[in-house]
Amino acid sequence: VPSFNPPSDATLRRLADIVGEQNALCDPARQAPYLTEWRDLYHGSTPIVLRPGSTEEVSRIMAIAHAERIGVVPQAGNTGLVGGQIPTGPEIVLSVDRMTRIREVDRQRTSMTVEAGVILADAHAEAEKHDRIFPLSMASQGSCRIGGNLATNAGGVQVLAYGNARALTLGLEAVLPDGRIWNGLTNLKKDNTGYDLRDLMIGSEGTLGIITAAVLKLFPRPHEQVTAFAGLPDLDAALVFLRLAQEHAGPALTAFEFMPAIAIDMVVMHIPGMQNPLAGRSPWYALLELSSPRAEGGMNDALDALLASASEKNLITDATIATSLDKSRALWKLRESISEAQKREGGSIKHDVSVPITTIPEFIRRANAIVEKICPGARPVPFGHMGDGNVHYNVSQPQGMSRAAFLALWETMNVAVHDLVVSLEGSISAEHGIGRLKRAELARLKPALELELMRRIKAVIDPLGIMNPGKVL
Amino acid sequence: VPSFNPPSDATLRRLADIVGEQNALCDPARQAPYLTEWRDLYHGSTPIVLRPGSTEEVSRIMAIAHAERIGVVPQAGNTGLVGGQIPTGPEIVLSVDRMTRIREVDRQRTSMTVEAGVILADAHAEAEKHDRIFPLSMASQGSCRIGGNLATNAGGVQVLAYGNARALTLGLEAVLPDGRIWNGLTNLKKDNTGYDLRDLMIGSEGTLGIITAAVLKLFPRPHEQVTAFAGLPDLDAALVFLRLAQEHAGPALTAFEFMPAIAIDMVVMHIPGMQNPLAGRSPWYALLELSSPRAEGGMNDALDALLASASEKNLITDATIATSLDKSRALWKLRESISEAQKREGGSIKHDVSVPITTIPEFIRRANAIVEKICPGARPVPFGHMGDGNVHYNVSQPQGMSRAAFLALWETMNVAVHDLVVSLEGSISAEHGIGRLKRAELARLKPALELELMRRIKAVIDPLGIMNPGKVL
Repeated sequence: VPSFNPPSDATLRRLADIVGEQNALCDPARQAPYLTEWRDLYHGSTPIVLRPGSTEEVSRIMAIAHAERIGVVPQAGNTGLVGGQIPTGPEIVLSVDRMTRIREVDRQRTSMTVEAGVILADAHAEAEKHDRIFPLSMASQGSCRIGGNLATNAGGVQVLAYGNARALTLGLEAVLPDGRIWNGLTNLKKDNTGYDLRDLMIGSEGTLGIITAAVLKLFPRPHEQVTAFAGLPDLDAALVFLRLAQEHAGPALTAFEFMPAIAIDMVVMHIPGMQNPLAGRSPWYALLELSSPRAEGGMNDALDALLASASEKNLITDATIATSLDKSRALWKLRESISEAQKREGGSIKHDVSVPITTIPEFIRRANAIVEKICPGARPVPFGHMGDGNVHYNVSQPQGMSRAAFLALWETMNVAVHDLVVSLEGSISAEHGIGRLKRAELARLKPALELELMRRIKAVIDPLGIMNPGKVL
Repeated sequence: VPSFNPPSDATLRRLADIVGEQNALCDPARQAPYLTEWRDLYHGSTPIVLRPGSTEEVSRIMAIAHAERIGVVPQAGNTGLVGGQIPTGPEIVLSVDRMTRIREVDRQRTSMTVEAGVILADAHAEAEKHDRIFPLSMASQGSCRIGGNLATNAGGVQVLAYGNARALTLGLEAVLPDGRIWNGLTNLKKDNTGYDLRDLMIGSEGTLGIITAAVLKLFPRPHEQVTAFAGLPDLDAALVFLRLAQEHAGPALTAFEFMPAIAIDMVVMHIPGMQNPLAGRSPWYALLELSSPRAEGGMNDALDALLASASEKNLITDATIATSLDKSRALWKLRESISEAQKREGGSIKHDVSVPITTIPEFIRRANAIVEKICPGARPVPFGHMGDGNVHYNVSQPQGMSRAAFLALWETMNVAVHDLVVSLEGSISAEHGIGRLKRAELARLKPALELELMRRIKAVIDPLGIMNPGKVL
């Protein structure tokens, strides 16, 4: 971590002048929401939280930070799961949470230009006004903001059909570490004029600059959507079932989630009103969705044919189709309640990993054995986005063990599971990023050549090292 | 352009030893196919053409080039349209045309690992063996090679549904300028562990390293495909028709091409056996295709409904649906024959540009006026991928003018058309890249900040400037 200066009082006053006193937070009580995060792993401190109202103000702040060599932590919705948005000490916090303008929806309604502080759910609502969808979708969508979604290249439940944040972005506006504004707000689908600066900035977690606005892709709104929940004998069958679903539905397969029996058990036990929609209990379940832009797109027939074929091949043991929007929402709520239900079971050690899709069953079998060895009785609850190879390999504490004693095993368990992930050619961060939480693991596990290239790039775009210091690299 | 050393005789011998004498071409006759390109704009010279057979050999060549400060021009299928693959003088040519192995198709058949020298059509054939498609598709697919496709971030006719080369690539293997091998051959769909080195390398046109292999995405093979050819009153109607098609079909709309009457006239006149499939003559035509992975995916009904709706709204004046594979091929041949037919009409000045989709009609109207002023009687033949905003704005010479006199206007016309493109927030290279042809235009028109960032990145990844010197930047 490079060293930098804490801002002087005079500098703090100049910074406050840019955004106005009411948007320059020095009072601990007003700072508090910007200095903790919902997993409660990190508690930061900072001389000042600045809430600029425009790109111009962000630019002026960065020009001063650059001249005075002051560390800057960009923050959007503060929903990040790896601590990337929390300062470590003397840095100032630059929150984009006042930059909530939707600047434009283009005439063809294929894109919209939004500022970094727009809440994801508000972006959804705006798209729907124009009979379109912006498909990036995740549990935190009521509070996460576009700037953070892009800075972390967020994923979610619709990556299978629509891609992650990077794939959903056409153009960017960002302020560079020296305060200059990069206007890359294009809505072009094709532009082969040099290096891909956009995709370099997306996913760099605020270490190369501050994203202030973006042009997001819009898609036709599905007018037919069918959801099914199926019981599976084992994960190998789930793999074949996924392939079959892709062959039947192609891009119409908009979700394919998997979860173990224990996840459903926990949801049914802890979340009021939830129940297993299938009569029998299966070791594994899949939740899948097919969508068509046409009201009569044949999705029901396609789903019937898929389930019949899967049943005939003994890939599924039981299945139910949601015949109404309410029933579909209930199925999705099962899936979305897993994390909350798990919380009620005590401590949970989490891994957001991806592996080549075909190795998911092997990964889970071997990870379970590793976990059992480290902590006998611990209960793995692996679930996630099968079509993306993305496993949320979360482990609930053994019943009766103390929460603190279990969580003390976090690092040991992470290291062992990540070693397995790397041996299977997987990724130790599928969608949450690196931030502070996985920085040491990245340094330990990422090939030296890649780390070197990243550090070289960082060194020429942020030569003073003031952008989100101590994160990622 | 940085200066570098021409290789000494001793160095040439060491380089030849790596690949074997038969793959080290010093004889002008054997070098010739590597030193000219099919538009015949560039003629290069080189002390040696090296044809390594493996990544290891590429690595050894680059280590020597780095140590001796020798410029290197990577080449794959030599089908590039901007001269990026042709040496300017003392550089050596490194052709990957012997690296044609398909290393692996994964068990789930969602990806395949191919070497950089695999011909695109061979990649298609391999995918089809596994009942899959690799959707990158363009006129040169019988001779272009994957390494070049990725180095230039190639586009083509299916970008609308599947994206360009960048979107179709999961992992990369590349040799860096100092000879080190970067193994980024992952088939993960999600990996948020640091900066996006893959997308930085893709589209960098051989200026940051040499792509030696890639993991390509595969997709389910469409089992139903319907094609239509429609006459349109004007381009504004075409825009609304495109939007309607996207609303009807969503991701099932796999192509939407537009072309003017003069293009069809030229094809009918010059290409044996071709005729206008519509009875009447329209000022503009659209060629569109809908695809479904299911044999009974309802594509015929969807197309019927789309055309009925478009006709009712007076967006199209006439249309025909291909009722067989042969008829569909005939429709596609009309589109694919435009460039060849244009050749028979004498000289043609070309622009591969993109503009925001909604400004396509304005762009073409204003470009036509500009062209008429520069060269009265010149005949614009603008066609392309409407859904991508990509216009091949090609201009045929006036009848009766000398070819040479017309082509002497190339730069004047390019500059004027590119100025218009930039004023409309478009791109001067939609899919062909920059290479040598558009290097001066890039320097003239790209924002200084972006050029600076690109140069800084180039300087830390290729500090000696030996990779494809004089190209792009």
